[in-house]
Amino acid sequence: MSESVYAKAGVNIDKGNQAVQKIKDMVKSMGVKEIGKFSGFFPLKEKIDNPVLVSSADGVGTKLKIAFLTGKHNTVGKDLVNHCINDILVYGARPLFFLDYLATGTVEPDVISEIVSGILEGCIENDFVLLGGETAEMPGFYKDNEYDLAGFIVGIANNKRIVSGENIKKGDLLIGLPSSGLHTNGYSLARHIVFDQLKLTVDSKVEELEKTIGEELLEVHRSYLKPVSKLLEMDLVKGMAHITGGGFVDNIPRVLPEDLAVQIERVWPVPGIFEFLCQAGEVSKEESYRVFNMGIGMVIFIDQENLSKLETTLKGMKETYYLMGQVTEKKGKKQVIIN
Amino acid sequence: MSESVYAKAGVNIDKGNQAVQKIKDMVKSMGVKEIGKFSGFFPLKEKIDNPVLVSSADGVGTKLKIAFLTGKHNTVGKDLVNHCINDILVYGARPLFFLDYLATGTVEPDVISEIVSGILEGCIENDFVLLGGETAEMPGFYKDNEYDLAGFIVGIANNKRIVSGENIKKGDLLIGLPSSGLHTNGYSLARHIVFDQLKLTVDSKVEELEKTIGEELLEVHRSYLKPVSKLLEMDLVKGMAHITGGGFVDNIPRVLPEDLAVQIERVWPVPGIFEFLCQAGEVSKEESYRVFNMGIGMVIFIDQENLSKLETTLKGMKETYYLMGQVTEKKGKKQVIIN
Repeated sequence: MSESVYAKAGVNIDKGNQAVQKIKDMVKSMGVKEIGKFSGFFPLKEKIDNPVLVSSADGVGTKLKIAFLTGKHNTVGKDLVNHCINDILVYGARPLFFLDYLATGTVEPDVISEIVSGILEGCIENDFVLLGGETAEMPGFYKDNEYDLAGFIVGIANNKRIVSGENIKKGDLLIGLPSSGLHTNGYSLARHIVFDQLKLTVDSKVEELEKTIGEELLEVHRSYLKPVSKLLEMDLVKGMAHITGGGFVDNIPRVLPEDLAVQIERVWPVPGIFEFLCQAGEVSKEESYRVFNMGIGMVIFIDQENLSKLETTLKGMKETYYLMGQVTEKKGKKQVIIN
Repeated sequence: MSESVYAKAGVNIDKGNQAVQKIKDMVKSMGVKEIGKFSGFFPLKEKIDNPVLVSSADGVGTKLKIAFLTGKHNTVGKDLVNHCINDILVYGARPLFFLDYLATGTVEPDVISEIVSGILEGCIENDFVLLGGETAEMPGFYKDNEYDLAGFIVGIANNKRIVSGENIKKGDLLIGLPSSGLHTNGYSLARHIVFDQLKLTVDSKVEELEKTIGEELLEVHRSYLKPVSKLLEMDLVKGMAHITGGGFVDNIPRVLPEDLAVQIERVWPVPGIFEFLCQAGEVSKEESYRVFNMGIGMVIFIDQENLSKLETTLKGMKETYYLMGQVTEKKGKKQVIIN
């Protein structure tokens, strides 16, 4: 058979269908029907009072470049899923389903199935489903062997029990849960420092770090679903901030009432990768806490009187945590003061 | 103030925040709270039996290149919204909310607010809400002044009344609703023909067409929500196919039982843009119906006995439609035969 006119224009529908088939095969194991048709279906069987759907969209950002450089495509999907989970979890919502958008210049079925396997792993580990998605072949948009990846999550909560932060008051405590690395933020700066300034490669090893640069930068964004669900169940949480783009400085004010501030003490061990990047890139303290998570991926606000309950619970789950700060009155313009 | 290290790496958080503020201001008019925080909230107040959420992800595809060439960015958002609506509508679902993912190389607040204004217009016209979204600044991924745009829709239906196509039988009729142009499919081929082969520009005028090439190619993807909702209400619809990527050939089998085929008669006037593209590009009849919608954007399957009811209803709404084919037994491998 001769190559079709459409294929000559850079789009190969058959190869696209082949990629879709690979995804379908993987998804079958999750018991989800209808993938590859126009839409996905999620029967609402939840027994929940005052149900509210909580939804969020996100991308992996330029962390994808590390996947391109290392040729390791099976973790960025999990980064995306976990990022999205944390974004609805901060309001006390539980994930129901996920959809992805994957855009490439040319569809390579093997790379696509690697990417989707990461998404599926993230969904399975957090016990919810990949309901569908779009794989778009867009010649002239993306470089060869590059792609963009975005995700969309829908969760559910009781509208009268949304964790909004509105009851946070002076004297409340900040509990930090450690990050696993950069998560999905600060990669433009990290890449600039590592590859442009230091001229390192993903295979480089530096004294401060146990793994290669590529491995460090690909560390998977953590999901906080398990420990946070337990704390929510016990009604210990007054507010939460997922530390993503904008760091402490932009994310904590999203949940903190406007007339309050937080005093943060740097009591946790800042992971080597941040020390290394900030030193090599001459990043100021102030900027580092705006660009990176600096080792804390989730900040939880609790009432002082609940501290011992929280400690017992997290210790029981073998979860590391840090009592990292306290809520104070706002004195100047700043809501986030890092000592 | 000196430029921050992060800005030097190509990311400008302040400019990003400025774009987010513009979007927030626009969205305020829709009565949606919480945009710009981690997630969006949609209280489920629907009184519906056996509720099932129906969800779909999609992109605009390479139609975006036409927006880049013309500098007209306020319609691609509506393309995206309408495409997503049609993808859940084919199952009988009604849209609840929408989220977008917009990725650019550099954030230009004015262009971004143009894009989002199109999304908002699509949501308002179809009476549902933009609940949130992600605007990602990804230096090194996209060319200057280029972007990618994807959308996610969530709708709701009665799980026992899903329009699945499973009851389609021999003798049922195919009703076609006209498209407004290419919708969002076939743009890689169309651009190849128009710009590479014919060396035309978006401002070119050709004899066969009333508008410029750019205007023709930017025609907004239609939403079929209004006429189809009416037909669903009257219980006239047995199955539907949204004619998108893959044309008649790939989309009709998505709803048609495997042992049946359709005989399509080309009774509708094929719009000039398709005639022009197929002639200039020497696209075969077979391929044209796989790549383009050829003037029909939605195919509706009905029982013969409901034809007059359907005709009265659509005429009453001043909706154009075509009795375009019939369901037959499958004789060979092909499910879609175009006469």
